[in-house]
Amino acid sequence: MASSEGNKLWGGRFVGNADPILEKFNASISYDQRLWEVDIKGSKAYVKALQKAGLVTQNEMEQILTGLDKVFDEWSKGEFKIKPGDEDIHTANERRLKEFIGDPAGKLHTGRSRNDQVATDARLWLRDAITTLKELALQLISTMVERAAVEIEILCPGYTHMQRAQPIRWSHWILSHAAALSRDVERLEDIRKRVNVMPLGSGAIAGNPFNIDRELLRQAEFLFWGSMCLTHLSKMAEDLILYSTKEFSFITLTDAYSTGSSLMPQKKNADSLELIRSKAGRVFGRCAGFLMTLKGLPSTYNKDLQEDKEAMFDTYDTVHAVLQVATGVISTLKVNQPAMEGALSPDMLATDLAYYLVRKGMPFREAHSCAGKAVYIAESKNIHLSKLTVEDLQTVSPLFDKDVSSVWDYTKSVEQYSAPGGTARSSVTAQIEHFRTWLQAQKQ
Amino acid sequence: MASSEGNKLWGGRFVGNADPILEKFNASISYDQRLWEVDIKGSKAYVKALQKAGLVTQNEMEQILTGLDKVFDEWSKGEFKIKPGDEDIHTANERRLKEFIGDPAGKLHTGRSRNDQVATDARLWLRDAITTLKELALQLISTMVERAAVEIEILCPGYTHMQRAQPIRWSHWILSHAAALSRDVERLEDIRKRVNVMPLGSGAIAGNPFNIDRELLRQAEFLFWGSMCLTHLSKMAEDLILYSTKEFSFITLTDAYSTGSSLMPQKKNADSLELIRSKAGRVFGRCAGFLMTLKGLPSTYNKDLQEDKEAMFDTYDTVHAVLQVATGVISTLKVNQPAMEGALSPDMLATDLAYYLVRKGMPFREAHSCAGKAVYIAESKNIHLSKLTVEDLQTVSPLFDKDVSSVWDYTKSVEQYSAPGGTARSSVTAQIEHFRTWLQAQKQ
Amino acid sequence: MASSEGNKLWGGRFVGNADPILEKFNASISYDQRLWEVDIKGSKAYVKALQKAGLVTQNEMEQILTGLDKVFDEWSKGEFKIKPGDEDIHTANERRLKEFIGDPAGKLHTGRSRNDQVATDARLWLRDAITTLKELALQLISTMVERAAVEIEILCPGYTHMQRAQPIRWSHWILSHAAALSRDVERLEDIRKRVNVMPLGSGAIAGNPFNIDRELLRQAEFLFWGSMCLTHLSKMAEDLILYSTKEFSFITLTDAYSTGSSLMPQKKNADSLELIRSKAGRVFGRCAGFLMTLKGLPSTYNKDLQEDKEAMFDTYDTVHAVLQVATGVISTLKVNQPAMEGALSPDMLATDLAYYLVRKGMPFREAHSCAGKAVYIAESKNIHLSKLTVEDLQTVSPLFDKDVSSVWDYTKSVEQYSAPGGTARSSVTAQIEHFRTWLQAQKQ
Amino acid sequence: MASSEGNKLWGGRFVGNADPILEKFNASISYDQRLWEVDIKGSKAYVKALQKAGLVTQNEMEQILTGLDKVFDEWSKGEFKIKPGDEDIHTANERRLKEFIGDPAGKLHTGRSRNDQVATDARLWLRDAITTLKELALQLISTMVERAAVEIEILCPGYTHMQRAQPIRWSHWILSHAAALSRDVERLEDIRKRVNVMPLGSGAIAGNPFNIDRELLRQAEFLFWGSMCLTHLSKMAEDLILYSTKEFSFITLTDAYSTGSSLMPQKKNADSLELIRSKAGRVFGRCAGFLMTLKGLPSTYNKDLQEDKEAMFDTYDTVHAVLQVATGVISTLKVNQPAMEGALSPDMLATDLAYYLVRKGMPFREAHSCAGKAVYIAESKNIHLSKLTVEDLQTVSPLFDKDVSSVWDYTKSVEQYSAPGGTARSSVTAQIEHFRTWLQAQKQ
Repeated sequence: MASSEGNKLWGGRFVGNADPILEKFNASISYDQRLWEVDIKGSKAYVKALQKAGLVTQNEMEQILTGLDKVFDEWSKGEFKIKPGDEDIHTANERRLKEFIGDPAGKLHTGRSRNDQVATDARLWLRDAITTLKELALQLISTMVERAAVEIEILCPGYTHMQRAQPIRWSHWILSHAAALSRDVERLEDIRKRVNVMPLGSGAIAGNPFNIDRELLRQAEFLFWGSMCLTHLSKMAEDLILYSTKEFSFITLTDAYSTGSSLMPQKKNADSLELIRSKAGRVFGRCAGFLMTLKGLPSTYNKDLQEDKEAMFDTYDTVHAVLQVATGVISTLKVNQPAMEGALSPDMLATDLAYYLVRKGMPFREAHSCAGKAVYIAESKNIHLSKLTVEDLQTVSPLFDKDVSSVWDYTKSVEQYSAPGGTARSSVTAQIEHFRTWLQAQKQ
Repeated sequence: MASSEGNKLWGGRFVGNADPILEKFNASISYDQRLWEVDIKGSKAYVKALQKAGLVTQNEMEQILTGLDKVFDEWSKGEFKIKPGDEDIHTANERRLKEFIGDPAGKLHTGRSRNDQVATDARLWLRDAITTLKELALQLISTMVERAAVEIEILCPGYTHMQRAQPIRWSHWILSHAAALSRDVERLEDIRKRVNVMPLGSGAIAGNPFNIDRELLRQAEFLFWGSMCLTHLSKMAEDLILYSTKEFSFITLTDAYSTGSSLMPQKKNADSLELIRSKAGRVFGRCAGFLMTLKGLPSTYNKDLQEDKEAMFDTYDTVHAVLQVATGVISTLKVNQPAMEGALSPDMLATDLAYYLVRKGMPFREAHSCAGKAVYIAESKNIHLSKLTVEDLQTVSPLFDKDVSSVWDYTKSVEQYSAPGGTARSSVTAQIEHFRTWLQAQKQ
Repeated sequence: MASSEGNKLWGGRFVGNADPILEKFNASISYDQRLWEVDIKGSKAYVKALQKAGLVTQNEMEQILTGLDKVFDEWSKGEFKIKPGDEDIHTANERRLKEFIGDPAGKLHTGRSRNDQVATDARLWLRDAITTLKELALQLISTMVERAAVEIEILCPGYTHMQRAQPIRWSHWILSHAAALSRDVERLEDIRKRVNVMPLGSGAIAGNPFNIDRELLRQAEFLFWGSMCLTHLSKMAEDLILYSTKEFSFITLTDAYSTGSSLMPQKKNADSLELIRSKAGRVFGRCAGFLMTLKGLPSTYNKDLQEDKEAMFDTYDTVHAVLQVATGVISTLKVNQPAMEGALSPDMLATDLAYYLVRKGMPFREAHSCAGKAVYIAESKNIHLSKLTVEDLQTVSPLFDKDVSSVWDYTKSVEQYSAPGGTARSSVTAQIEHFRTWLQAQKQ
Repeated sequence: MASSEGNKLWGGRFVGNADPILEKFNASISYDQRLWEVDIKGSKAYVKALQKAGLVTQNEMEQILTGLDKVFDEWSKGEFKIKPGDEDIHTANERRLKEFIGDPAGKLHTGRSRNDQVATDARLWLRDAITTLKELALQLISTMVERAAVEIEILCPGYTHMQRAQPIRWSHWILSHAAALSRDVERLEDIRKRVNVMPLGSGAIAGNPFNIDRELLRQAEFLFWGSMCLTHLSKMAEDLILYSTKEFSFITLTDAYSTGSSLMPQKKNADSLELIRSKAGRVFGRCAGFLMTLKGLPSTYNKDLQEDKEAMFDTYDTVHAVLQVATGVISTLKVNQPAMEGALSPDMLATDLAYYLVRKGMPFREAHSCAGKAVYIAESKNIHLSKLTVEDLQTVSPLFDKDVSSVWDYTKSVEQYSAPGGTARSSVTAQIEHFRTWLQAQKQ
């Protein structure tokens, strides 16, 4: 028997040699070694359960615990050496344990299949991952909220269909993305809730082959969570890329978040935002691939499921980096207030013009039509909507009068929207307070 | 102006004609008409808010409410006639309202954009959809649980990697899928929780252009929920398709859930199960398509988002049908107990053979290796593992003795796993009780 | 036996009743009826093969052909009535044939499974679909090429990273998208080539159960083709949406390709372009769903494969509409030449400034750095790059001299790129000629 | 200026420091270093073009070529050292070149943007990748064809819907998968054809910003090709996993392609096949992710596109491994002829029974119904179809006679299908010859 097989967990009855390409294909140690810490933690908990169940003695348990601590120590110091035959982190850790303590190491696997171990490790890892990602998301939200508080006076165009719609507060735009992120945090908490539920029978010696299915669906859910969260950030990035074009010139990224061109000396590209925009694709690809792998598989473990780890790690790493880069971008970008406010134009108050008529008793639908006609006249005359005379307006509706001039005030327009969620100063301030309270509650 | 434009909500300033292909492309009435009921409900609530805010009079409100009831009536009786120009359900309902009550109809749209209306309708519809799907899922779970209770005595092979692993109770297999479904129900409740939260400012007259983003992510989440739920059912279907092959012969579908072949008279195909297996692909495709559409869009409404409804309806319809078909299949399939139990073989007790040695003091890893060698000897001799003599076994380990014969008992093997979630009678019974209680709680 | 079962192709041995939900789920007639024409064509060819093989007589063949013509006639006139039990188009056509000619109809299915028939129908349908989509794509390309020819004098900024990069001809932008489409046409021809190859044994009486796999991969390829083609058009649409913002103002869509807002009277949204942008998601979702359905299925026919038709039809319909809408948009949009040329700025010639130094002997990398410094100085002084004095420039490099003024000419800059594929007048003209020749060749 | 910025290609005007997280996010050297060889090849070709265009002297060209050879040498020997600031392979190679030859290195980048270089490298790499994958696919096909030739006598059940359908030759099953793979090879040739077309203007000094779009679609096409190829192999794997279950027992994998269980000593799992089955998901995920990233991007280069390389490499590596593992599995699996032939049963000849009646003049549809009734009678009597007496059969149709006994012969049944693509010996032999000729032609 080849020496490399000596360590294989299923080494008893095989007589042929494995195809080396398959062996490499099969091995997961290159990526699952990052589970080393949770794998050791899980084994320590497991051996205590074995001892309680009378399956190892107090003495054996202590040997195993001490040995596991030594393995832990080696990993911590970067001194653990992966050997040929260490096909996954579980095999590697058990192999090293055996080198430290000899035969008792063989008792650790009593009543535990590798699949149980994989599922437990993934669960513990995911729990930590959720905690870290939540912290990063809260940091980003906090940055957004404080920026919104400081820049509450700045007005800018609100867009729908990438066309100027109505004036809004710049803070309102920021908070809309903070709101989306806060819902992502709540969804993450839903996943954590499920991760924290120990599997039925988890304290048992006898494994349950169906637990693996539960773990996989949790992972799938995490991959989708990453896709949702990054899809949302892709929208924020798209807005900001637009705002950073020469044509909009609403914001400027600091050099730390831009790069230049190897050909064109004048270029300053919003690479950081483009990377944020792109990553929704990457992570969703992982989710799509994993669900496609799961689909139509029979129950319990099948080797196909080995695909899960790389997808989970890559999703975590990507979201981890994106959240930090986004925090950096949001906290350092410079707002060009004159450009933002210069982009406001009287036609963006056409809705207010309609409301003027509504206040004089006209049904909204008719008022909308009248305001539309006014826009058309102004366009035909090639003048701003606000420059139409009262006489011009009266050709559209006799309800127009001199007091129509009061419509042409952007701040006044914005201040109309004072309901919760609106863009008036009081309403934005209330949202800021709401987020501050929420953030405080999340951190506890 | 073309008469078909007369009804368009944005009819004020347009002078050209629309491209008829674009018009058809643009129109959503062919599928969004199924929102008719929630659209009317939403409008009734909205006009009441307008009246409270002083934007319509009591009298106008009453006219609008009466008019909306007439529209409702027409839809209920299947008498509503869609006309050219009714590009979506909102336009259609408002057009009809105007025909009933004239000018006051124009006041209903005060301070409400079509996007607000779309978002509200989608929210109301999704809330109902969740209720219905939950009921169907509970019905399926209930069917599974009661079947598991009745057939608790039947043993069958448990498989991993589609290879016979260890004996389990057939009920244990059923309950593993019930468990997965019960988690799907819990995830659905998480979505409902978010659907029930009214958008910030939703009671307000002034719309919030960012609410649409919230609605879309909820829809995306629902599409993914459908994908997860059907991926799980695809696994159950795959198991059952396998079990219904001639080679396994564990189950037989009733004719109601099978179809024949147009070429081969003897064929009886498990079409119902194949359809269940397939639909995870369909629904996930909807989810993938929708997320790809969302990715990289700027904030607020863009016409791209029109894609959401068809995806939502198709996901709902598909999950709706699959849950019912699955309930039908599970409640009517016939179990072939002799075939299931005939598929148990002594090598499936090799783990028990290892435990025999563990009980005699051997570390599990070594015991696993000894049991593996015993399997190899039996295979070499071309006899069942249980037919090895004590002498044969002692060549592997001196710990083997006459009492090894007690290992070869499938029921005894199964009864070892009595921890929560295990396959022992007591443990399966406990699970059944757990589900019954849970179902009761869900129905309240 | 229930009367509705009388028509089922596999009606011989079933004794139970089908679940009505399953029956609906199972039935494909609601969408596959659009195969009516190719189904009849395929059957006509098939009966001729049967007659040659001696399996039907000349007389029977004639009866069948005449009967099929009658069925064809009914469909053509919209008079064909689908009855309960017509679960798919094949069953419906055969049922009607039998009503016309009686028993001989039963011979048409000799040696042909429904799967053979489905595969043949799909093949014939796809062949026609490819022809139509190719024509529409050629029409779009032709529109682009002729527009490029007319507007060759117009300059505009070329963008990378959505930042102004170098001046280009507007025609160059148009042709870049024509080029991408022309490659899509070539890919479509590759698929047609494979569709035209008759399956091995296709002329045979005995069907080959593996042919279905071939057909499905062709369909998958078509779905992906649609995804690629629309992904490309999504990029073109994104560019044009940007160009139609108020901030860019490079183009204006005609009213026929815009829509307004139900709330904001001044809005004019590029809905047509947003729909084009969105559809890549929809079609790719179909492709993703279908591949996920296929993945891991066993060979030959499984009911899961019923998913193929809807995906194929929806992809065809969507690409069909998008190509036409895109042709309409491209042929009618108005270019705002002053805005395009007004967006050119001297810093876009920084690369030319570097080349100036290269021509004086400086390595490009160093020249790039010098030009970068010049840009920095101009920014610091808040003046245009072209307004730097020779003295300013000499602080960066002594190689700068008075002749540097010749750099500040956008047309001259553009004319430097006269290699094939470049943006010089001669080069763009050559591309136009290339496309005209290519289009001519394609139409033959 | 930080020293690490000294090497950045866009180092001229930036004054801030980059965010280290962004820097890592941005850097591609960790994976794009595998382009080192094609990057140097591309640069060598490029400097020759520069010399022809008079942009570098003969002497400078020679220095650059010699320097590039030294860089090549270092990579070949594994001695190249990546330094901080080497953000991608292009920067790294140029940095090293400069260390070798000084200033002239700076001339290499004249008129070439990094995007041009990336596109050229990707093109060259993909060309080599296609060649290698084609060779591996041909090797697999060749293995299949020769195995089919050797085992042509073995019969087995052909399945549809995973239910026994009709007897076929085992070789016929093998060749159906070889056929699918041969079409994959042809599709790969279509891609190669497009990769070999040099971009318009590729010989030019002036880059074309639109070439990048072309390259990306080629890559997308390659990712989809990988998905299609692996989806097909997933079906083959699914068949073989089924055939290797205890219940089917048609094939046995050698130990080299199986693994055991860490818990259950008797297990022998078809891990190699499960890995093959799973990888379609992984690769399709890459394709989905990349298309989602591309969707809705503006034209030309955007940083989002950095995602392309990892997807391309991972797809290549995965298909590369799968093809080899599949070749290993196919060439070493053992066929259990008695089990295959033992799985044939008389009801699989029911179609032949129908044809018996057709030959006596009954329309097929009626004959199908009669055969179905015969199956039903046999099932009711719980006997094999072939054990029905002539009297039994005559209750179904008077056309049955003693000669019906000739129907019950599997080999005879198989030999009926002698048309091209059929399962008769002559037909399978013809297919084998066809593949041998085709393979010969491909290798030239």
